[in-house]
Amino acid sequence: MTVTLHVCTTCKAGEILGDGQPVLGARLHAALLAGEVPTGLRIVGVECLSACNSGAAVALSAPGRWSYVYGRLTEADAADILLGAAAYHDAPDGIVPWRSRPVIFRKQSLARIPPIIPPLEAPNV
Amino acid sequence: MTVTLHVCTTCKAGEILGDGQPVLGARLHAALLAGEVPTGLRIVGVECLSACNSGAAVALSAPGRWSYVYGRLTEADAADILLGAAAYHDAPDGIVPWRSRPVIFRKQSLARIPPIIPPLEAPNV
Repeated sequence: MTVTLHVCTTCKAGEILGDGQPVLGARLHAALLAGEVPTGLRIVGVECLSACNSGAAVALSAPGRWSYVYGRLTEADAADILLGAAAYHDAPDGIVPWRSRPVIFRKQSLARIPPIIPPLEAPNV
Repeated sequence: MTVTLHVCTTCKAGEILGDGQPVLGARLHAALLAGEVPTGLRIVGVECLSACNSGAAVALSAPGRWSYVYGRLTEADAADILLGAAAYHDAPDGIVPWRSRPVIFRKQSLARIPPIIPPLEAPNV
């Protein structure tokens, strides 16, 4: 299964930059693309993950799996993000045992969203 | 299309409660179920949305659409959450014009995640 790592490329994270200087989100995106991207991981830059108070942010998702959003990242976290994404890819249901998650994934979760499951007869539970 | 509102039922949001007192997440879940649930919206309680620093939290999602997570909610927000969920349901692509979103959705976004799209030939962009 291919899993997707969305990376907010517009996160400024409060930095004050000179003209033409890349924002933190763009630097994180570049660092991820330059890293050891594991097989089965697709990295996709996106303009905003609406986590602007907690940037830079990334989101991991795949069909039928929980999605995870992490924030307060920097380009120095790129290698750990790729390791965590590989573990997510390799876990049969995308749920990685707590101890196998990179520390940044344990400490910097912004949210997770359950997989989309077809509606039931009794809609509200 | 049926859209899903996941509600964290375990969010404590820092409240100190007596034995047997329902936590804020459970109270929010109950208030939503007791509200005017619009057609096409499914409300699903979930044990944790991993937004524990920003609880209580809810997530809106539907197949092929962006997912949205909102936090710092209370049971007093139930009616506005249902209005916002109805607008999400009614928008053809789930993207509700900014001015049509409830203030809590404008101000209390934790994150949004793009829809899952099948992998492309060139995987990383």
